[in-house]
Amino acid sequence: MDPIVGRMTLKEWVAVESDSVQPVLHLRRELLRMTGLAADRLRNLGAHVDLVDAGFQQLPDGQSLPIPPIILAELGNDPKKPTVCFYGHLDVQPARQEDGWVTDPHTLTEVDGKLYGRGTTDNKGPVLAWINAVSTFRALDEDLPVNVKFVIEGMEEAGSLALEELVQKEKAGFFSSVDYIVISDNLWISRRTPALTCGTRGNSYFMVEVKCRDQDFHSGTFGGILNEPMADLVALLGSLVDSSGRILIPGIYDHVAPVTEEEKRTYEAIDLDLEEYRNSSQVKKFLFHTKEELLMHLWRYPSLSIHGIEGAFHEPGAKTVIPGRVIGKFSIRLVPHMNISVVEKQVKQHLDYIFSKRNSSNQMTVSMTLGLHPWVANIRDNQYLAAKRAIKTVFGTEPDMIRDGSTIPIAKIFQDTIQKSVMMLPLGAVDDGEHSQKEKINRWNYIEGSKLFAAFFLEMAKLH
Amino acid sequence: MDPIVGRMTLKEWVAVESDSVQPVLHLRRELLRMTGLAADRLRNLGAHVDLVDAGFQQLPDGQSLPIPPIILAELGNDPKKPTVCFYGHLDVQPARQEDGWVTDPHTLTEVDGKLYGRGTTDNKGPVLAWINAVSTFRALDEDLPVNVKFVIEGMEEAGSLALEELVQKEKAGFFSSVDYIVISDNLWISRRTPALTCGTRGNSYFMVEVKCRDQDFHSGTFGGILNEPMADLVALLGSLVDSSGRILIPGIYDHVAPVTEEEKRTYEAIDLDLEEYRNSSQVKKFLFHTKEELLMHLWRYPSLSIHGIEGAFHEPGAKTVIPGRVIGKFSIRLVPHMNISVVEKQVKQHLDYIFSKRNSSNQMTVSMTLGLHPWVANIRDNQYLAAKRAIKTVFGTEPDMIRDGSTIPIAKIFQDTIQKSVMMLPLGAVDDGEHSQKEKINRWNYIEGSKLFAAFFLEMAKLH
Repeated sequence: MDPIVGRMTLKEWVAVESDSVQPVLHLRRELLRMTGLAADRLRNLGAHVDLVDAGFQQLPDGQSLPIPPIILAELGNDPKKPTVCFYGHLDVQPARQEDGWVTDPHTLTEVDGKLYGRGTTDNKGPVLAWINAVSTFRALDEDLPVNVKFVIEGMEEAGSLALEELVQKEKAGFFSSVDYIVISDNLWISRRTPALTCGTRGNSYFMVEVKCRDQDFHSGTFGGILNEPMADLVALLGSLVDSSGRILIPGIYDHVAPVTEEEKRTYEAIDLDLEEYRNSSQVKKFLFHTKEELLMHLWRYPSLSIHGIEGAFHEPGAKTVIPGRVIGKFSIRLVPHMNISVVEKQVKQHLDYIFSKRNSSNQMTVSMTLGLHPWVANIRDNQYLAAKRAIKTVFGTEPDMIRDGSTIPIAKIFQDTIQKSVMMLPLGAVDDGEHSQKEKINRWNYIEGSKLFAAFFLEMAKLH
Repeated sequence: MDPIVGRMTLKEWVAVESDSVQPVLHLRRELLRMTGLAADRLRNLGAHVDLVDAGFQQLPDGQSLPIPPIILAELGNDPKKPTVCFYGHLDVQPARQEDGWVTDPHTLTEVDGKLYGRGTTDNKGPVLAWINAVSTFRALDEDLPVNVKFVIEGMEEAGSLALEELVQKEKAGFFSSVDYIVISDNLWISRRTPALTCGTRGNSYFMVEVKCRDQDFHSGTFGGILNEPMADLVALLGSLVDSSGRILIPGIYDHVAPVTEEEKRTYEAIDLDLEEYRNSSQVKKFLFHTKEELLMHLWRYPSLSIHGIEGAFHEPGAKTVIPGRVIGKFSIRLVPHMNISVVEKQVKQHLDYIFSKRNSSNQMTVSMTLGLHPWVANIRDNQYLAAKRAIKTVFGTEPDMIRDGSTIPIAKIFQDTIQKSVMMLPLGAVDDGEHSQKEKINRWNYIEGSKLFAAFFLEMAKLH
């Protein structure tokens, strides 16, 4: 492996603003360019690369945007070796310097061993670490110990549009020879101890629009005689969760799996220094004060977050406007055994009820724009054992066996469709700040992570 | 008067993005350019023009921006004639095509006799109508029947920074010879019947910041264990006003002047077609259903509007972010005899109380960034009589005697400082959409308004 080359490519990849969240054409073009760069890199390794057309994304306003093609690549097809398939994504969350970034989000910048930039940890860095692992064997002129496949998409941050369809379609094709799926799209729970992830929460994303008219109003000329959409919206959003973090939507906890004594013990085994976690998170105080409570509320209980409002005044300064039409955005992280369509119904019923109580003359529309299932792994699979051994080899320690509070929907899709073992093997540290204005990957994690993947290939070959 | 020349200048003026609300340097430069254009136009009329340095605006982040100079201009100083001073402003509210404008907000566009563009009615059109009136006498080579002065500023939409100080300073100078102040910075209450305005509401603008940390969080990685700033903020904003429009801040109505029987009768006399008003406003249903209630809630009761949130996700699409630091913005329109510092205290006490009940670990900071007094005119002054006669001459009708729900703080400043009669003589129609994405002035209003000002000069001369 040549870490210098690896780092230079990460710099090149971070420089591409492959934002899939904002549905605008120039960003979609960057996504297509990013896909091309990754395909070229894989071809240079000697992989056979297919760029599978993924069609178009239909926007609510009637327009459509191209979805970047999904990369299906393979290296080796020796029937005596196990076939390991790596999933990753090339798209990123929006990032602008003025959002509060200290460094340019699209210029990889190293400070004290931290490589800052949008996508460094989520998920361009891990994709490249996997590529680095493969290229190590190539550089040493050694045979790859496993057959390697890649599924790399460009719409993960926008709900992995088109991916599920592709997996279904390729179930008997590309995926038929796959034995194991590995995903590296989450983080450790510590800054130094590696982790293996055996569950993730799902997510349901809601938009609630309140409309009086399309144009805004002057608050002097109309203030006092209107049901103002913002007043309706803050009442609706304010009805969702209380100040202790408890979701107030009736019935929402009905299907949450009860906590068993055995499960409780798994939280106790996790090495989490609360003080360090609090410090690295830069949070004065969490809602819960024991390790077990904290982990359960991150991993196995649902949570509701309000993300923002579209259509209201959002810039610095003072504008005396009554927004005419506003859209509140919130999402609920789902856990076993919550059902997406039940949650959708509960949310809509609740908002309908709150809105009807206000007797407002505005129009309210609620839509669920994303619904992603939670996922739980089978940790008795061979690849979990191989990964544990590889971690021991590279890091000299046992991994934390963790869940992840965020959603990697494809885990559940792979598990349900291909019915092969899915493993999540993170390589980023807890303070990497995915989605935030300080996203980074540590130089150490990036290089050791590349080694970990190479070691994992060797362990897989031994176990097979 | 040459309406074509007048319209071409309006086009030129609307093309300048003289936005004073967003505190950024390139917009401030546009404001300075706009001030220069207006000064040139006045010099071309033969006016003596002073550009009075207005210093700098201090921003909360420590930076400062230049305030455009205030124009003081005069034409004629015949001691036998009355001196009428016109106040107007050249700055505008923010306007971007993507906010929902059908036409380019900075390209004057005529559709069905309506001249669309940011600033057409608020306030560039009226400033030019006054200039047109003066130039009519110039074009006819007739002596101006009155001495004319102009005070034209560029910071009205940002709270008329530096103007009060100037008025104080020039009280014994520029303003010593002024007999009457005329302001045309509001609208009629009808589409066809002209109006005279004899009162305005004040305004107090508040920002409430809730901060957990400076960076945002990923809602998967942190959702469930945080006091989320958005949850705190929607609770705070949701505590301000109920769904009937009543402000919930304790004590806020204590100093509102009681309604007298005589005052009630003035509302009954106003010619307001509720159905037409509703239609032209494009509002399905107002909070009140009689003319009197509606007018009282627009003019003589306080109102509270929530304008928006800074720091949260505001773009189209779905972003799974927990904003780390958010600023809610709202304002209260003030009426006689509310006291700004009492209101400030009541708001802060109320928000402190609501926030303390939540027991949140976040930090809350409340600041009042603008405090503008309400104003009531003396309608027995000569100039109100002159204006009524001029309206009769040009429009053939009696004006509606109205108040205005929005704030023209300078009215109160002129009245208190110079202690001369202040009149508000609007020329825009009720559906002009100041501050909205459809701002326009009717061609008819613009031209008849220019005539009205000329007729007003003649009537003033007769009465003096």
